Amino acid sequence: MDVPSVYHIALDAMGGDHAPRAILEGALAALEAHSDLYLHLVGDEARLRPLMGQLGFKGELLSRCAVVHAATVVEMDDKATSILKEKKDSSIRVAAQMVREGRADGIVSMGHTGAAMVASKMVIGTLPGVDRPALATILPNMKGRPTVLVDVGANVDCRPEHIAQFAMMGAIYAGEVLGIERPRVGVLSVGEEEGKGSATSKEAAQALKDMEINFTGNAEGRDIWNGKFDVIACDGFVGNALLKSAEALAEGLMMGLRDTFYENIFTKLGGLLTKPALKRFAKRLDYAEYGGAPLLGVKGISIIGHGRSNGRAVHSAIRAALMACEHRVNDHIQESLGRLLPQTETRETT
Amino acid sequence: MDVPSVYHIALDAMGGDHAPRAILEGALAALEAHSDLYLHLVGDEARLRPLMGQLGFKGELLSRCAVVHAATVVEMDDKATSILKEKKDSSIRVAAQMVREGRADGIVSMGHTGAAMVASKMVIGTLPGVDRPALATILPNMKGRPTVLVDVGANVDCRPEHIAQFAMMGAIYAGEVLGIERPRVGVLSVGEEEGKGSATSKEAAQALKDMEINFTGNAEGRDIWNGKFDVIACDGFVGNALLKSAEALAEGLMMGLRDTFYENIFTKLGGLLTKPALKRFAKRLDYAEYGGAPLLGVKGISIIGHGRSNGRAVHSAIRAALMACEHRVNDHIQESLGRLLPQTETRETT
Repeated sequence: MDVPSVYHIALDAMGGDHAPRAILEGALAALEAHSDLYLHLVGDEARLRPLMGQLGFKGELLSRCAVVHAATVVEMDDKATSILKEKKDSSIRVAAQMVREGRADGIVSMGHTGAAMVASKMVIGTLPGVDRPALATILPNMKGRPTVLVDVGANVDCRPEHIAQFAMMGAIYAGEVLGIERPRVGVLSVGEEEGKGSATSKEAAQALKDMEINFTGNAEGRDIWNGKFDVIACDGFVGNALLKSAEALAEGLMMGLRDTFYENIFTKLGGLLTKPALKRFAKRLDYAEYGGAPLLGVKGISIIGHGRSNGRAVHSAIRAALMACEHRVNDHIQESLGRLLPQTETRETT
Repeated sequence: MDVPSVYHIALDAMGGDHAPRAILEGALAALEAHSDLYLHLVGDEARLRPLMGQLGFKGELLSRCAVVHAATVVEMDDKATSILKEKKDSSIRVAAQMVREGRADGIVSMGHTGAAMVASKMVIGTLPGVDRPALATILPNMKGRPTVLVDVGANVDCRPEHIAQFAMMGAIYAGEVLGIERPRVGVLSVGEEEGKGSATSKEAAQALKDMEINFTGNAEGRDIWNGKFDVIACDGFVGNALLKSAEALAEGLMMGLRDTFYENIFTKLGGLLTKPALKRFAKRLDYAEYGGAPLLGVKGISIIGHGRSNGRAVHSAIRAALMACEHRVNDHIQESLGRLLPQTETRETT
């Protein structure tokens, strides 16, 4: 008989615009929802303890979490690499250290993205066979389903075999964590026809053809939103630009729309009448549903959330980490790497 | 005393989803608005003549246009290079030939984008000193002003000096045609701090520092929309992905919004009340205001419009071509190339 597993997640309780309150709110909701979750709340104990009392951490829920003290926090204007020297006692570094030492299965952070990436890559380390960990983002498409875009900024200047690995890791994540059957995988290019693209994208497409994944060909920019692909792989330079552009455009459009509703008495009334429907529409596009971006390819689970995350987004990010543990995403990545890319050598990369 | 100049534009009357009607509508509006415009309407004479009669081409307006017969048109599933062999008699090829032979100052086409680029590069040819012509797109930003993104697809696999040239040509276009004083120029990167970016973007930034333009540093994806830069230069691979993603996202959001208004009786009424304000908002974002994408760096003016263009977009595209002529954009590009990039060698590029 199987003994039910418990997964240990180290949560950076101090990272994020609304930390520590929003982080703890999300933690509490996650503990309530997932009985196989054990949370290590990493941060300033003197601040966390009273807040936990206020928010109602007690009884069985309290028995499934521990406070792990960390004296400092990485601030937004700190360098990402500060965790390696000046800020060894920061919450994100301490959380990553727990995974390194086998005391936790993964980390979740809403703090400094660069610091979380450095902590994951340098402190937790890269999975054997993975050339470069890649940051995947889960975007809501117009079909109301998720599209995984990977890499969105962990790596600039990628070689074709890196992009092929990103695609493979993204496909495993989409299949195991998002529950998409036989995810359709594409490589970002400038046209859907085979042979269109940059030297790198064309070679990546070629490499993907030989892999045991459902490679569907070239994806274009528009395919991020139309649901034609479940996973789109690209260089982190392009992915980062695409993600930041999309966030700003969507936000700008929504703000412009809101201003429109304040123009006069008719539009105000119109805004009032459509508000519930608009809220439902906005919810479909809400990043808080998916919670965070997994950094794929590290020796442990690493979910990096948006600085602005509210409690719901934090809960979603913890759920994503838990599902990655439950579905053994890293084992699948290693198996696939071994089976599908026997020709890939591991190289030292920056 | 200056004799007022007349500029000759060869208009591909057969290219575009709504050709030839929308093209002729735009042509008529442009002739009415600009007394220094002479239009060569290139296409199937048997189709164009009756339509011109219907639309009211007559008198002084008719005296400023000519029909130039072209037997075929490049279809959407034709190869871009078809104009070089099978479709030498296509409207876009015949229009480009007129510029080559000095019978027109520029072309405007809403047809097959690839064919228009090939016609511009191969038939009209590249300006001396320009390594690669670049497609610029003029995007409406949240400040209600234009942002020029260049290159959006004419070149994949660019070297840093190409991107620097794109920036320089974009700045001249923004200054001369869009009337932006001292346009703020950025190079696309993954972070605003100097030193962030790909090897290519960093070197391009370095090259731009030495040029006599208002180089403002690294731009991020979000800066396409916030009005922080007037011109953002990037590799055509990235630019193409960004443009296609943005078009699809904006369209998807607007369609989702429209569906929202059909949900029930309250939202329908709300939609009705807000409709005029929403229309004004949508107009601010309307590509038809800017009409077309200039292909910068060719020996003549080339404006490539959206296949979906309506008459207003066609008019805007013709106006853009005319202004590029009036403001001698190409002379400025050559002067700047001579002055600012004396170190750049001209290379054979594909």
